[in-house]
Amino acid sequence: MIDILIDKIIETGNPTVVGLDPRLEYLPTHIKEESFNTYGKTPKAVGAAFYRFNKEIIDSIYDLVPSVKPQIAMYEQYGVEGIKAYIDTINYAKKKGLIVIGDIKRSDITSTAEAYSNGHIGRVDIEGEMFTSFDQDFITLNPYLGYDSIEPYIVDCKKYNKGLFILVKTSNPNSGQIQNLDIGGEMLYEKVGKLVAQWGENLISKSGYSSVGAVVGATHPEEGRKLREIMPHTFFLVPGYGAQGGTAEDLKGCFDKDGLGAIVNSSRGIIAAYKNDKYKSKYSENEFGLAAREAVIDMKNDLQNVRSW
Amino acid sequence: MIDILIDKIIETGNPTVVGLDPRLEYLPTHIKEESFNTYGKTPKAVGAAFYRFNKEIIDSIYDLVPSVKPQIAMYEQYGVEGIKAYIDTINYAKKKGLIVIGDIKRSDITSTAEAYSNGHIGRVDIEGEMFTSFDQDFITLNPYLGYDSIEPYIVDCKKYNKGLFILVKTSNPNSGQIQNLDIGGEMLYEKVGKLVAQWGENLISKSGYSSVGAVVGATHPEEGRKLREIMPHTFFLVPGYGAQGGTAEDLKGCFDKDGLGAIVNSSRGIIAAYKNDKYKSKYSENEFGLAAREAVIDMKNDLQNVRSW
Repeated sequence: MIDILIDKIIETGNPTVVGLDPRLEYLPTHIKEESFNTYGKTPKAVGAAFYRFNKEIIDSIYDLVPSVKPQIAMYEQYGVEGIKAYIDTINYAKKKGLIVIGDIKRSDITSTAEAYSNGHIGRVDIEGEMFTSFDQDFITLNPYLGYDSIEPYIVDCKKYNKGLFILVKTSNPNSGQIQNLDIGGEMLYEKVGKLVAQWGENLISKSGYSSVGAVVGATHPEEGRKLREIMPHTFFLVPGYGAQGGTAEDLKGCFDKDGLGAIVNSSRGIIAAYKNDKYKSKYSENEFGLAAREAVIDMKNDLQNVRSW
Repeated sequence: MIDILIDKIIETGNPTVVGLDPRLEYLPTHIKEESFNTYGKTPKAVGAAFYRFNKEIIDSIYDLVPSVKPQIAMYEQYGVEGIKAYIDTINYAKKKGLIVIGDIKRSDITSTAEAYSNGHIGRVDIEGEMFTSFDQDFITLNPYLGYDSIEPYIVDCKKYNKGLFILVKTSNPNSGQIQNLDIGGEMLYEKVGKLVAQWGENLISKSGYSSVGAVVGATHPEEGRKLREIMPHTFFLVPGYGAQGGTAEDLKGCFDKDGLGAIVNSSRGIIAAYKNDKYKSKYSENEFGLAAREAVIDMKNDLQNVRSW
């Protein structure tokens, strides 16, 4: 699966993933109002509005980026109706040719990980009838429980041609509290980085990268550089660019000498671009898709400056 | 919230939580068949069958235990229909007076944690209309991202009288790979234990325990004892008893001198007791509820032997 992502990055010339993390406050008034008029102020209205918003964002950017990353929490908080909108969003994005990275950050023991894996990247077997529930191309996972909590997903990655991004160094301010603990001369995140590289060894494909990738926050440039060295065959999913404070310069070290090796996420900066001072004089609320499109182009150019190719 | 759990443990004399982790292979034939006849072999049929199964388990044990712990992965894997059965199960268990520990093990940065917290223990605000989506009493969380990934839940614990169990030392075979790394004279899980204790300091109530608890696997008796010392005000949720190999003797160290301080989970050993050699000669498949009830009583007696009171 990582080769498909890399091919799409080369084809679009753009190592960007658009974070589809809708919030009610990001939605243009007309979308909210129409949904509330139909369904009342209910979770069903929110689900419908999120899906409609996402569709228009996807329609506006699908030819410019390789991938989208819906954050399941934004949907899950609305229960069944939210999950429905999440699945509809995944299906629509895939129909438009986008690679979908499901940001689910799950973590559990083997027997439970099998259930998550079946649902998120594999199949569920209902007495011989096979169903896909979420069918994302990649998902994010948390490594705290160790290899046997990851192995079921690796099995499904091989079986269904899927990929993972495992948390190594996250972008949040307190990420160092545990991840930067000194474990005898190196930091925990370095050790976790080595483990993730090892877990992915059997999934390295012709691009030289493994379908087992790592999450490496853009807010820690030095650490990104160090991890790029430690993990030469591990592709990075890089959150923290833009709204969280990471700049293109900060993530230079995450790319390899060919300008590959990393895909950078932006959520708010793109999907809510029409609210940003930079775009709001040019685009009305109804033109949020056009604003998102311009924000994607601006981000592509910004990243271009720090990639060697 | 921890005081309510402790009161229920004292009232039932039973520090047991029943893990509601249904699988198709645990379900009696008649429940599966009736559901498949109505809905076909579909996720909808599985959701309906899970809910019916859980209801009968709950009806059979609600007067004997303080709490149930549904594992969301078992439901989530079936998509929208699974999530519906999960929520229906929570609501039914609460209606029967049980405390619900949602085993969700989520982990994410602050803004995302807020969304999870709203949905799982708090409220979602739809333009002034407040909704509960999952409304569990406790949820489990993963600490790898540090304090700012936990804080939003702590805010909601105070606001809505809820509780947390944060992973410290898990029950799976590979848990030591990261959790037992040596960080300058102590192991990572000890450090995480201290952090969790600190995160919960402001939520200690009259019982002397905090509503911020810890997950401590029964498969590591020495480590349980050590953590009990390090974290005197932290209540433990203990998985790994029974099917995963932990014995009552193994979890002695998790209890305090009053026989409190811990609640022990059993899933398969109770909900699928009718398939166990010990019970299957006595109970038919249709009597799976009675078998579960007897398994709960046997577990209570087993735990009684290692608790001081």
